[in-house]
Amino acid sequence: MSNVRPLAELRAVREPGKRMRSRLLDAAVEMFKAQGLAGVAVADIAAAAGAFPSQITYYFRTKEALFVEAACREVLYVARQAETSAAPALTGADYNRRLVETVIGSPGLALFVEALSLTRRRQDLAPLIERTFDRLHSQGDRAYAETKAQHGWSGGDDPATTARRFWTLALGVALRDGATGATGQEAIDEMLALLRHSGASPRAAHSHGAT
Amino acid sequence: MSNVRPLAELRAVREPGKRMRSRLLDAAVEMFKAQGLAGVAVADIAAAAGAFPSQITYYFRTKEALFVEAACREVLYVARQAETSAAPALTGADYNRRLVETVIGSPGLALFVEALSLTRRRQDLAPLIERTFDRLHSQGDRAYAETKAQHGWSGGDDPATTARRFWTLALGVALRDGATGATGQEAIDEMLALLRHSGASPRAAHSHGAT
Repeated sequence: MSNVRPLAELRAVREPGKRMRSRLLDAAVEMFKAQGLAGVAVADIAAAAGAFPSQITYYFRTKEALFVEAACREVLYVARQAETSAAPALTGADYNRRLVETVIGSPGLALFVEALSLTRRRQDLAPLIERTFDRLHSQGDRAYAETKAQHGWSGGDDPATTARRFWTLALGVALRDGATGATGQEAIDEMLALLRHSGASPRAAHSHGAT
Repeated sequence: MSNVRPLAELRAVREPGKRMRSRLLDAAVEMFKAQGLAGVAVADIAAAAGAFPSQITYYFRTKEALFVEAACREVLYVARQAETSAAPALTGADYNRRLVETVIGSPGLALFVEALSLTRRRQDLAPLIERTFDRLHSQGDRAYAETKAQHGWSGGDDPATTARRFWTLALGVALRDGATGATGQEAIDEMLALLRHSGASPRAAHSHGAT
């Protein structure tokens, strides 16, 4: 079995590769946040990361693939920040407010919205987007369920649906406010109003079991 | 006052202009639906409408402005269709289902999502987007309030918030499913699940007025 490399040797090859990949993503995120996808050249990202443009091609193939991967990593980072910030909330309303203030208006959410628009025309990048949604939803579900249990909150929807609804509304608000140029505070207020829910769907006055 | 043109004469000038504008929008919508913004040339739209490319420049200035106007007109048309289809619903759940089946997966919604992404980089087109949101929300508000009153439904959120939430969720679902390539039925099911709401925000078990 001399053709099987020892694990330590494999790691020695892989670790520097992972570090370079991560350094390229870090540099890319900062530049894309500041200048958008169209405003950034592969050569500039490489230069900022102390790498060669060919290394971007090697690790990511295209600028668009690098953009989508950077945006997905960034929105997951925003989500973790939001959940950390919301965990000590004492009420459901306070929990929502803390999530919303971290997520809405964040550059990470804006990058992710642009990545979704881009992926519409680049279906080869769809699997990464799907995995990112799965993680957003499952992280949000777990974080909210834990906080709910800790505080003994009752009522409200199940945490899984609540997490999915939160992210769907956040995308809608970000898409709209990116276009209309609404201020951060307007977007936050709008998102909070959309999350508040006074009750179930309307029912017939003489209910026949309609929901 | 010989420099004031009689009204009839003014109309004779304006009406053909309005008709040409509308014909260009009709041709553009069909071509954008089939081939997307990037896949359609101004010359092709002009040819399909029996016009000259210079007439598109005259009425709309740029292909992007024509695209955004066509998308706004189309999403408002989808909204009216949805409200007409939902009006005879007998329950709130049936009302939602009819709205969702008309709106989610419609080419008009997809065009509007693309128009929003585009307007992020073209803030000169933002006023038209804002007016379109105002009309979507006010039409949805009025249609839902009328149906609620007619059937004597009670409960649920106020119609204005309900209409805003509906369109924000629809944008989020369309943005996501455009990227992941979800089927129409998956998107419809997802939207229906997000609209169903089991109750208010969670409350502390020993409520201190938290909502």
